[in-house]
Amino acid sequence: MLVNREEYQTIWLQEEGRVQVIDQRRLPFEFVIQDLHSMEDAYHAIRDMVVRGAPLIGVTASYGIYLALVREQKEEGWHERLKASAEKLKEARPTAVNLMYAVDRQMEQLTGDGSLYQARELARKNADELKEQETENCRLIGEQGAPLIEQLAEDKRGEPVNILTHCNAGWLATINYGTATAPIYHAHEQGIPLHVWVDETRPRNQGARLTAWELEQQGIPCTVIADNTGGLLMQKGMVDMVIVGSDRTTIKGDVANKIGTYLKALAARDNNVPFYVALTLSTIDRSISDGIRDIPIEQRKGEEVKYIEGYAENGLRKVLLTPQNSRVANYGFDVTPAAYVTSLITEKGICKPNQKAIEKLFKS
Amino acid sequence: MLVNREEYQTIWLQEEGRVQVIDQRRLPFEFVIQDLHSMEDAYHAIRDMVVRGAPLIGVTASYGIYLALVREQKEEGWHERLKASAEKLKEARPTAVNLMYAVDRQMEQLTGDGSLYQARELARKNADELKEQETENCRLIGEQGAPLIEQLAEDKRGEPVNILTHCNAGWLATINYGTATAPIYHAHEQGIPLHVWVDETRPRNQGARLTAWELEQQGIPCTVIADNTGGLLMQKGMVDMVIVGSDRTTIKGDVANKIGTYLKALAARDNNVPFYVALTLSTIDRSISDGIRDIPIEQRKGEEVKYIEGYAENGLRKVLLTPQNSRVANYGFDVTPAAYVTSLITEKGICKPNQKAIEKLFKS
Repeated sequence: MLVNREEYQTIWLQEEGRVQVIDQRRLPFEFVIQDLHSMEDAYHAIRDMVVRGAPLIGVTASYGIYLALVREQKEEGWHERLKASAEKLKEARPTAVNLMYAVDRQMEQLTGDGSLYQARELARKNADELKEQETENCRLIGEQGAPLIEQLAEDKRGEPVNILTHCNAGWLATINYGTATAPIYHAHEQGIPLHVWVDETRPRNQGARLTAWELEQQGIPCTVIADNTGGLLMQKGMVDMVIVGSDRTTIKGDVANKIGTYLKALAARDNNVPFYVALTLSTIDRSISDGIRDIPIEQRKGEEVKYIEGYAENGLRKVLLTPQNSRVANYGFDVTPAAYVTSLITEKGICKPNQKAIEKLFKS
Repeated sequence: MLVNREEYQTIWLQEEGRVQVIDQRRLPFEFVIQDLHSMEDAYHAIRDMVVRGAPLIGVTASYGIYLALVREQKEEGWHERLKASAEKLKEARPTAVNLMYAVDRQMEQLTGDGSLYQARELARKNADELKEQETENCRLIGEQGAPLIEQLAEDKRGEPVNILTHCNAGWLATINYGTATAPIYHAHEQGIPLHVWVDETRPRNQGARLTAWELEQQGIPCTVIADNTGGLLMQKGMVDMVIVGSDRTTIKGDVANKIGTYLKALAARDNNVPFYVALTLSTIDRSISDGIRDIPIEQRKGEEVKYIEGYAENGLRKVLLTPQNSRVANYGFDVTPAAYVTSLITEKGICKPNQKAIEKLFKS
């Protein structure tokens, strides 16, 4: 997607042994590209959230394995050392399923047979392929979802379709296009007039910082709002649809996503606004059905609630928001019951949030 | 209520011609008391939000009229000059109904008959009486509402009753006790174990800054959460009741309150959590019935969304939260339909949110 009118992805192989990523910790205030030269660089980029978003974490890890092999000096014993590196890499974000998956997928193929040179070539090919696959999935979500926006546009007689989104399920969380944003970008390209309400998304403000930035870079009209605002906008008829992403969805269609998503789903239902969840099928956990009962909710550091980071004259600054000794709680996700979800938008098509429809999609 | 273990109210007459207020712009980071010596001082305190909250604004304005008469030098023409001052005072916060009401109430009695000395005595008496009346109303709300908490406590077998509140409808918004907090303080005094979930309340963070501070000063256990969190807590059974205040309530019981209140009401209904609104009868606007249709929603400066104020090493600091040129929207209130309100808690008793019950309360 566009940054300062140039095409970018979130990660790319710049040259042999040198991967580049956008440092997302400094967006939207500074656009900085970071080099990854080694597995350790990939580890730190994931752990320190230079990169975030499940698909991007996976691809970064996959390139991390490749970089480990590039930096490997000795033919003898490289596979043992790689296995140790792979285990270390997985610890960068212990709850990130895509991280484990990407590393395991590499290691299944890097069996230790053949030369170091062959292994390096294979690792690069695997990482490239994973990146390509993630990109294609998001592109397809865009293709599948855009007609939903187009349909709404038909009733608006040239007025923009107003779409509300929460958090960042944009291209910055993936390789390109994003999940929730993919139908938006696709519809925009087709010339459908639209406007996005961007939930700030406290406490980490991914909406205000990342989603607003990427939409603006793409030239898509958008307005940042406090998370409290969406209900009023829906009451007033100022939202035509909601599209969010998902961190994990059950086989019955219960959707775990960034904390606060459930409140928007309730407001959407109360005001007859369609509520869509855009996700790749890999996000659907077929081993669980009841999301509220079965999906563990991550508790994060209280500091993220007590302090907020923003930009002042001299760069990024943190300021205290509560009394110094306040107790705070910081839950990362909530679960939106399937009953409040209009449809799921996936790379294989759109389906109702129920077990039968979801299983049919997997088989298609 | 308590500040550093000493009893305070939000406003008091320190000595003849000298009113004192707590500078609420600097809480919770600094506790500063400000002198008001003149009508102009009262005007600036209201306009610059040194004081906020409808009842406190009204009482400050009432003392402002008194201060105008204290500073008056000449017997001749004082009434004409006072009328001009009163009009100016009303402009400090043009949408604050209590401000108009308090000034008009003073001016109705200050007819210009009698001496300047007599007028000054009457103005002070009026201001004292308004303050006393507002205090008593909040005290009664506490008395009326505390049994609701007590009933819930009976089922909790010594575990604290978990109460969620939004924004600051605490003693800082009134003279003492608050509205939403009055039943909480009353129940706490009776020894009922309780814990309060405090919504941060973006964009102005009145929850994180004011409600958390006043509850902590009173020794009431509380936890600050992002506004996105309440839905999850209710899903998990971690909220026993919600109590909020109101800025304006219709005769049919639709409740306008700080933006985001409606989302919590939806979550409460979805999880069978009782949702109470604590307010004085003066907040009920008997001239309107349909809140969503009839209550205008104030739009405030976008800067409040784009920037946030917090505390850094050297004092209060503002930092930028969005891309520099982002468009933002900042709606101040939303309307919770009466159907989602369990009961109203008023100084005259608890009633269901419908016209018949509300009118009965007015007549009682």
